[in-house]
Amino acid sequence: MNRTRLDAVLASMEKKGIPQMIVSDPCAIFYLTGKWILPGERMLALYLDLKGKHRLFINELFPVEEDLGLDMVWYNDTQDPVPMLTKFTDHDGVMGVDKNWPARFLLKLMKSGGASDFVNGSEIVDKVRMCKDEMEKDLMRTSSKLNDSAMDRMIGLVPKKYTEKKMGKMLGDIWEELGADGHSFDPIVGYGANAADPHHVMDDSLVKEGDCVIIDIGCRFQSYCSDMTRTVFYRSVSDHAREVYEIVREANMRGIEKVKAGVRFCDIDGAARDYITEKGYGKYFTHRLGHSIGIEDHEFGDVSPVNTDVVMPGQIFSIEPGIYLPGDIGVRIEDLVIATEDGCEVLNGYTKDLIVVD
Amino acid sequence: MNRTRLDAVLASMEKKGIPQMIVSDPCAIFYLTGKWILPGERMLALYLDLKGKHRLFINELFPVEEDLGLDMVWYNDTQDPVPMLTKFTDHDGVMGVDKNWPARFLLKLMKSGGASDFVNGSEIVDKVRMCKDEMEKDLMRTSSKLNDSAMDRMIGLVPKKYTEKKMGKMLGDIWEELGADGHSFDPIVGYGANAADPHHVMDDSLVKEGDCVIIDIGCRFQSYCSDMTRTVFYRSVSDHAREVYEIVREANMRGIEKVKAGVRFCDIDGAARDYITEKGYGKYFTHRLGHSIGIEDHEFGDVSPVNTDVVMPGQIFSIEPGIYLPGDIGVRIEDLVIATEDGCEVLNGYTKDLIVVD
Repeated sequence: MNRTRLDAVLASMEKKGIPQMIVSDPCAIFYLTGKWILPGERMLALYLDLKGKHRLFINELFPVEEDLGLDMVWYNDTQDPVPMLTKFTDHDGVMGVDKNWPARFLLKLMKSGGASDFVNGSEIVDKVRMCKDEMEKDLMRTSSKLNDSAMDRMIGLVPKKYTEKKMGKMLGDIWEELGADGHSFDPIVGYGANAADPHHVMDDSLVKEGDCVIIDIGCRFQSYCSDMTRTVFYRSVSDHAREVYEIVREANMRGIEKVKAGVRFCDIDGAARDYITEKGYGKYFTHRLGHSIGIEDHEFGDVSPVNTDVVMPGQIFSIEPGIYLPGDIGVRIEDLVIATEDGCEVLNGYTKDLIVVD
Repeated sequence: MNRTRLDAVLASMEKKGIPQMIVSDPCAIFYLTGKWILPGERMLALYLDLKGKHRLFINELFPVEEDLGLDMVWYNDTQDPVPMLTKFTDHDGVMGVDKNWPARFLLKLMKSGGASDFVNGSEIVDKVRMCKDEMEKDLMRTSSKLNDSAMDRMIGLVPKKYTEKKMGKMLGDIWEELGADGHSFDPIVGYGANAADPHHVMDDSLVKEGDCVIIDIGCRFQSYCSDMTRTVFYRSVSDHAREVYEIVREANMRGIEKVKAGVRFCDIDGAARDYITEKGYGKYFTHRLGHSIGIEDHEFGDVSPVNTDVVMPGQIFSIEPGIYLPGDIGVRIEDLVIATEDGCEVLNGYTKDLIVVD
């Protein structure tokens, strides 16, 4: 167990009046114990308790050789782990549970009276995870540097006229060559109108002259995720596309300029969104400005119009405005930033000047 | 909506006294609507209702162009979809929810009084999904035929002495060449002692003379998953390894022979497990005998000592006994079967004779 991180979680539990909690997210368990355990559909539950009776409930199929500094409760496929957990919990105390804990475990624990009430306790761990420590910041810097290099190579591949799918595959090779641990999310390469779908799935499309090319990629490096988007143009760019590009670029810069400890996330979103709206494209910016990132590519805390939380130093999130004109073009420009007391450190160094590749 | 499948689900809801249900699993939604929607952390909820007021709650980020034959309720990232759902549900009726519905949605719907009680309703859809229709059986046959071909190529690659990781990567290329839609799960290639971990993650290990080589692979074909394991030996095989292999092979055959509509899953598990136990290796067969499969590689209904359900015609599941001797060797032999009235159809044709590759 990472004592500093665990203590921060326990302090927050105490403050919120949650005496016991079930952490089930493998990322959160990795964050607290240093150990990745991917249990698939089997129950994995780290029970935390203000009295210090921490226990990890784990299926025998996932052997742990190292001493994690907490008691382990093993079960096998012929046993139902929920009654084992129920035996152990404080039935008269409130229980915080992980936001993603599957209903099949939660409903069973509820019906067996495992706690007096159940609440979503994820914010406790998630908010501790939001503020990255120095080791984490360094890993995020390295992960983003690798992403800069990969972006450069990917943009260099555009003139080869590979299908989007093939581009995605080549990125897998690039990560390997660069020493990254693979994609941090399914990459997006979208040509022309495909770029106008913010969640486009790569297909067999080929790039055509005048197409915008959206490239949204990231890798894992020692469990930490990078994430960056650039949009370039193939052979030529229309005046209209250039106008859209420059609006998105300016929105990206305005978002980044707004970042500083103490500022509300919604105001960062607003700095970019208001500019896009002012230019007449507000309704084509269809998503939040950004999301937190770290061990997961999307972590708790988004940069959206409705998040009134204030930024704290050490938080890492994306700034990724976009304009999507259905059937026509899509432009998104995304960087990661680390918030500091008086501004932010931008983790991506790759140019945002409009590039036409040939 | 696939009317036959939906009607089967509604009939089961009626029978179980569940007047309304939330289906959130993208696989189940694909099964019922024919449309894949992968919402990531956003809420996707298909609300089904015995009165016929079906609705799909979906984020605007995931546009659906086709008419799915049901009403859509769109929300965006600035809106909380749970209150929208609460407005719509019958607050006085029981609500079935998906087994994997994340606690963050479930707890909120509970606190807002969205239903009189909440139960895990997944079995309703899952049990309909278990019995495959003719179209599904055909897709499963094709997917497994592709898997046979890939297994042959993978075994052919063993003498090339690639790392496990490289083998996994080459399998990706093989799926592409064969026209499959990629892996149905993270493949396992394990050399020697690595094979003794049933959930081994491929690493940079190289094969050595005398090693067992476990190859557990599967592809997707038009959304349907195959899954097969073979264990071969590199250059030589010890008498002890041969003994273990033959025990696992016989257990596989005994499991398959036991399959027939009306037989209990636990008795199929027992047919294989008892034989392994009789031979003195019972404690080294550390998992259930098999799992159902279809749109997902692991579906509802396992072949385990505790599942007393009886097999129905059209169910497809794996028979995969294994013996794992820690630090030494692991052997697993896995086939998929379709249960019929009087036995089963084995979907994998690849030989189970002991192979020593050179």
